[in-house]
Formats: sequence, structure tokens, C-alpha cells
Amino acid sequence: MTPPHPSDGRDATHSVAALLAPDILVMLDEEPENVALEVEEVHPADLADVAEALPKERVAEFLSALPAARAADVLEYLNDELRSDVLEAMSTRQAAELVTQMTPDDRADVLEALAEENEERAEEILEQIPREAREETERLLAYEPYSAGGLMTTEFVSVPEALTVEEALQRVRAMARAERREAMYTVYTTDEAGRLRGVLSLRELLAAPEGARIADLAWSEVVTVAPTAEQEEVARLTSNYGFVAVPVVDAERRLLGVVTVDDVIGVIEEEQTEDVQKLGGMEAIDEPYLAASFWTMIRKRVGWLAALFVGELFTATVMQQFEDELKVAVVLTLFIPLIVSSGGNSGSQATSLVIRAMALQEVRLRDWWKVARRELPTGLTLGVILGVIGVFRVLLWEWLGLWRPQPHYQLVALTVGIAVMGVVTFGSLAGSMLPFLLRRIGFDPASASAPFVATLVDVTGLAIYFLAAALVLRGTLL
Amino acid sequence: MTPPHPSDGRDATHSVAALLAPDILVMLDEEPENVALEVEEVHPADLADVAEALPKERVAEFLSALPAARAADVLEYLNDELRSDVLEAMSTRQAAELVTQMTPDDRADVLEALAEENEERAEEILEQIPREAREETERLLAYEPYSAGGLMTTEFVSVPEALTVEEALQRVRAMARAERREAMYTVYTTDEAGRLRGVLSLRELLAAPEGARIADLAWSEVVTVAPTAEQEEVARLTSNYGFVAVPVVDAERRLLGVVTVDDVIGVIEEEQTEDVQKLGGMEAIDEPYLAASFWTMIRKRVGWLAALFVGELFTATVMQQFEDELKVAVVLTLFIPLIVSSGGNSGSQATSLVIRAMALQEVRLRDWWKVARRELPTGLTLGVILGVIGVFRVLLWEWLGLWRPQPHYQLVALTVGIAVMGVVTFGSLAGSMLPFLLRRIGFDPASASAPFVATLVDVTGLAIYFLAAALVLRGTLL
Repeated sequence: MTPPHPSDGRDATHSVAALLAPDILVMLDEEPENVALEVEEVHPADLADVAEALPKERVAEFLSALPAARAADVLEYLNDELRSDVLEAMSTRQAAELVTQMTPDDRADVLEALAEENEERAEEILEQIPREAREETERLLAYEPYSAGGLMTTEFVSVPEALTVEEALQRVRAMARAERREAMYTVYTTDEAGRLRGVLSLRELLAAPEGARIADLAWSEVVTVAPTAEQEEVARLTSNYGFVAVPVVDAERRLLGVVTVDDVIGVIEEEQTEDVQKLGGMEAIDEPYLAASFWTMIRKRVGWLAALFVGELFTATVMQQFEDELKVAVVLTLFIPLIVSSGGNSGSQATSLVIRAMALQEVRLRDWWKVARRELPTGLTLGVILGVIGVFRVLLWEWLGLWRPQPHYQLVALTVGIAVMGVVTFGSLAGSMLPFLLRRIGFDPASASAPFVATLVDVTGLAIYFLAAALVLRGTLL
Repeated sequence: MTPPHPSDGRDATHSVAALLAPDILVMLDEEPENVALEVEEVHPADLADVAEALPKERVAEFLSALPAARAADVLEYLNDELRSDVLEAMSTRQAAELVTQMTPDDRADVLEALAEENEERAEEILEQIPREAREETERLLAYEPYSAGGLMTTEFVSVPEALTVEEALQRVRAMARAERREAMYTVYTTDEAGRLRGVLSLRELLAAPEGARIADLAWSEVVTVAPTAEQEEVARLTSNYGFVAVPVVDAERRLLGVVTVDDVIGVIEEEQTEDVQKLGGMEAIDEPYLAASFWTMIRKRVGWLAALFVGELFTATVMQQFEDELKVAVVLTLFIPLIVSSGGNSGSQATSLVIRAMALQEVRLRDWWKVARRELPTGLTLGVILGVIGVFRVLLWEWLGLWRPQPHYQLVALTVGIAVMGVVTFGSLAGSMLPFLLRRIGFDPASASAPFVATLVDVTGLAIYFLAAALVLRGTLL
């Protein structure tokens, strides 16, 4: 592996790697046998960027110019769509050869993604994978994709606890040589029946005195998950404990596999994307923004948008009840958007705070009362501050003559102030409680989107406003 | 390390660990010398939960009952507030002893957090740290906390590239023995001047033939960051490449430190919390929801809320211009909240999509035109769908006699339909472009919150509505 490039001046951003693409294209035409050497020292993630910058029909050719193990690495980093295209463009034999070279978890993921596009092709490739690897892949494919079982790799390091440090280290080195790569920074110890007994980090193994027994070194309190555990739970454990890997065990505590930290980062980002999109009032889109098709975009957005629109229709119904009041006091109309939106804004703050705290497990279902007790005074304080601004706006316009003189303008100001205060308080409370309510009845709390809360508060906000008007203005304006 | 607990039946959730607290409390009173053995096999993250479940004034006592190295581990996992309290409650000497046992990056982080609460105390402790560790800590404290330099640890493994595999492995083992823990799963190679030359994973080192030279094995294309790089950039590299560590180098390419994946996960979650809170229309809060004080909560929320309220005041100004029209056609009033909120909702979808795509670097500043070209037809399609629902709502109410018969109700229906279509289209476009605009002028695109977009669209949406009304209803209702 003599470096073909000087290692300085290297830029770490992806777009720079893509600049290699034109050179590669020329080499593929003129001296394809040299491509492998040219990119020998380039990280597979960067080669994936190169591949994505090539014309689509040349990607398979580029991968074929690399050693199979390298090509498999690159394949792992390609986006789902291009990878499926490439696997469809290659001969079944070649595709199977590449996929066989991947780690078991990536192999299962790739075939799963391909099956979504082209089930038949995925089957054909799977059939051509050598028996042992195929059976392992089939086992992994049987787990839910968003579970610990669906995330785990089966290439982990476990040793009988009876070994000595030196024996264990020999095993680890043999495994490292036999397999291309591994979840090997954590070593698990097992009893004679293959049940998980302990764990130690590779660092601890390297630091240990040579003659020591593994059983004495390993930590016996092992944090494990079941294969059916949700991926969020695995992510939470990894993050809270600072793990590089989490072991997956069956009911008899036999080690099934290991979820590694790189996959966990993927999960965390995926979950976060979902949460942000849901918070924005839409269904989650599981592909990059620019890669999603026009109709995917419409489909994911129109559902919530239409539901919220229908919910918002109730505002018209509420206002209809107050048509007479609106006719005699048009001045009330002017403040409708102001008042309802203040409630929506305070609700949006509260709901995003609570959703995030729930995602980080800082707040649990049973904490709803604690949260309500905080949001009530918070909302009230915020409401009073905004209400005072509202009162001054009305008084100022009258004093400065910025509108036609309004009879009883002081009472109008009071109405606006009371309504803003009430609506902001209600918004904070409703926004903070909606995620709890949704979780309680079995929905994702992140569905309590900013627009959902705003719609809820708009309808109620109007009622609060007209109620305040009726109380304050009865006998004068109304 | 003989296991004091059976390892089965162990639950991985944090709250369960906290159940140990009452037992620990009794042991601290009756047999404090046995506490260390009792919790010998418990993960420090769980011991931190135990500590958090103890009465505040007993936490220092609990930590004192553990060996210093263990106590330092636990200290790392404590929340900032409790940790600062404990470090203030202990003698300076004891606190310095614990902090000295921490990894350099955690030591710097802990002292940084303490200094925010109690600068003097942090100084006192720092002074008591042995010279070498103190100077290292001071070096790390000099970097911005949210930069690569502020995140990195200085406990990494580097070897001269002239060594053989066996020699390098001996060095790694010696280092693992000398230091309590390490960023050691990646081995860096350096030239005689100490400049970074290559990288190889510990797995590759273990798998290599014993006589091979490190220089031939290592990858020369090393992805590095400068110490001033923002933490988001480090997180992005770690995630894209699937790294367990990213090396930090100076301008001469000398290795300064390494950012490890556990810190990166912390960064990703922190950034995500900020983004969600900003998207909800508030300033980011850097402590857990239930830990933040009432006034912190008000301070972080009132700024944006008041700014948005003042922005929203323009809706009253816009409506004032149309007071005459509203007087003669009260029916128009009924649909105001419906129409403006539809724009806010579609804007909220678009802004959260774009903000997330920007955070994941799927979309860059120069892509604004691509995004605009997608959002325009998407918004238009969504607008037409909602517009049709709106038209039917008006027609239905008239046909079913759900309101007083309205003259020219077909034209009112048309006005509502056109306005909804226009407002939703404008909302999608404004919501998707605002993050680009903010980034262009140097602000955080995540400040383009759902409420911010909604306010922007409310004011414009009213103008669109009244314009549509003027066009369609002139000569009939108006």
C-alpha cells in the first residue's frame, strides 16, 4: 500500500473527492487496469462520492475495476437508489460476489433496500451467495429492519471465559485475519453453553497481564438488548453509556450479534430527521430532500396538510357564531390573526421542548404533571408580557391617530390584552400536554407538530377571544 | 473482579440502576468500606444514576467511598449541576485528585462547566492538579469549547512509521497499561518530525503479518480537521465515514489530539436539541427541560415570542386597510384564520425539510435554486388540493343551509379557493427560501422556525386574500 498521492493538502469534504471523477472516467477508457492503484489510498466513502459523480451507466464499470473487497466497501456507502441501479446493471454472479464481501449486517441492509425496488433481483442475488453467508443473511433479514436484530452484525468477537489473556489475544488476531472487518473493539466472554458471561474492551485485553484469566478481567454486568428491541433504545444505550458496541442476546442469553456505534449514529440521524419533519407537520421522508420524487413529496405532505386544513375549518364555524358581534365591532376583526398566532407560537415552543425532552428520555409519561405545573406559570408570564404589548398597540394607535377613532378603545385594548394572555397560556399548556396525550394513546409524541398545536389553539383561541370580548364589551360596543 | 451480582436479569434502563440508591445509603451509614465492592461491576453511567438518586449532600461521600479512578468515571457521567455541587462540597485536594484521574478532554470539560458556576473554585482545583496534567488541561481549555480542539483528547496512540507491526503492538500495549483509557482503536503513524503520515485501525494492526512495516500498512489519505474546526464538521465527518476517531492536526500537520466517537454522539444530540428548539421558535436551552429554571425558560422563550408578536402586529395594519371591505362582507372574515394558517402550515413543512437537509449537508447554499424549483410546483399542487377543499366547504355550507344564505356565495367560494392556493404556494416557497436567506446573511438557518415562517406568511397571506377578494368580488359584494 505505497501511497500514490501525497497525504498533505487533503481536504476532508465530500465534494472534493467528487472532483476525481473526470480523471477516473478518462482512466476507465484508456487504462482501466490502473484505476485500482490510482484510488488505492482513497477512503471508500470518498470513492462512493466519486461513483455518485460519474455518469450512472459507468458506475458498475468503475466498481468492476476495483478489487472485490474494495468495491464492496464502496457499495456500502452509495445511496440506496444508485446502489440498487448498480446491482441491477451487473451480472448476477458479479453482484453476488460483491455483496458476499460485505459485512453480514450491510449485506442484509443492501438486499433489503434492493428488494424494495426489485424483489426478484434481490432474490436472484441472494441465491448466488455461498451457502453459509446466505443462511446468515436470511437469518438477519428475518428481523425487523428497525430493531436491534435488524441492525446487528454477526461478526463479533467472543471467547470462552476459561482462556488466558494471551490465548484470547491470539484468537482475536486470528479472527481479525480471517474476517475483513469486525465489531472487535469489545470482546465478549461466554460459558460452555455459549451464554454471555462478561465483557471487556480490547484496550483492557491489551493492557492486561499476559497470564491473567479472562474470567477475572471481564465485567460481569453486561448491558444487553433483545433482538426485538427498538433501534431508538439501542441508540439511547450507546449514547448514555458511551459504548462502541451493544450486544444482542436471546432469551437464554446466547449472543446473537452486536450493534456497532457507526450504525447507531445512522439511527440517531435517521430518528432526528423523522422528528424534525414530523415537528414541521408532515410524514417523515426516508430519502434525501433532493432525491425524493415530486409525488413522494406531495404524498408525505398532503395528508397532514389536508387534515390540519379540515381542523382549521372549525375556525370558520366558531366565527360564524359571532357574526353579529363582528358586524357591529369590526375593530375586533383586526386582531384575530394576531391573537390566534400568538397561541400557536407559544404552543410551538412548548411542544418542541417536550418532544425533544421525551426523545432524550429526560421526560417520561409519568412526568406530565411536573411539566404542566411548569408550563402553566411560564405560559401565564409570557402571556402577560405579550398581552401588555398588545394593550399598548391598541392605545398607541388611538393616541397617535393611526386609525379612525374607535369608541371605547380602552375596552378594546383590555379585550386584546386579556385574550392574548389567555391564548398564550392555553397555547403553552396545550402544546406541552399534546405529546403526552399522543404517547398515552399509543401514537408517536413527535406527531404533536407545530402546525397541529397551532390549529388546535387557533380554534380555542378564537373562542377565548370572543368570550373576552363578550365579557369586557357587553353593553358598550356589543 | 469476581462478579458480586449474577449477570442475568439485569435491566438496561437507567431508572433501574437508581433503585440501588437506598441500599447504598444504608451501606454508607453502616459499612462504608464495603460500598466499593458492592458496586464493583456496575457501569459508571449507572453509578451516576445512583448518585443522582441519592440525597444531594451524600453524593460526595458516596464518591469518596469508591476508588479514585472509579469515582472519576462516575463524575464524568453526572449532570453538570450535580457535578459542580460535588466538586464544591469536597476538599480541594480530593476534588483535584478525582479530576486528575479523568481523561484530559473530560477534565477540561468538567473544569469548564464548573468555572461557569464558580470560577474561583475551578481555579483552585486546577492549581492542585499535578503539573503535567495541569498544563495539558490548560492547553485544552484554550480552545473554543464547541471546536474540534475543545472536543479532542490528547490520549491517542501514535507510532513512528519506521516500526514493524510487532514493535507497534508492543507500544500500543505499553500505552494501554500506562493510561487508564484511550482513544486507541485507531493508530496514527508519524514521520521523524512528528507530522501525521498515515492511519490504521487497531484491527488492521492485529491482523497484519508480524514482520510487516507499519509504513507499508497504514493508509496515507488521512481525513483530518484543524483544532478550530466547528464541532458540527467533526460530527459530519465521523458520521459520513463511519469513523471511531478523527485526528486533529495543526498547520504543520502535527497531531494535536483525537476526537472520539462517544463525544461526537454527544455533539450530534446537542446540535439536534438546538435545532428542534429553534425550529419551535425559541432560543436553544443547554440543559434538560426539567432542570432549567423558570427564568431561564422565560428568557429563552420571550425574545422570539415578543419579536414574532410584534411582527404579527402587521396583520392588524394590513387588515385596517381593508376595514371597509370587511364591514360590507363579514363573510370574508370567517375564513381569515383558515387561510393564513394554511400558509403557515405549508411553510412549516418546507422550512423543516430544508433545515434538516442543510444540517445533513444534503442541501448547500448554492442549491437554493434547485429547492425553489421543487417547492414552487409542490406548493402549487398542495395549494390546489386544499383550495378545492376550501371551495367545497363554502358551497356545502350554502347548499346545506348551515349558515345564513350568502349572496354571491359562488364567488366567495372562488375567492377562498384562490386565496388558499396562493397562500399555500407562497408558504412553501417562503418556508423553503428563508433558511437559505438566513444562512446567506450569516445567521443559523435553523432560526427559520415554524412560527417565524408562519408570521411571515400570515402578513402576506392576508394581503393575498384581500387581493383575491378585490379581484373576484369587485362589483358584486365589494
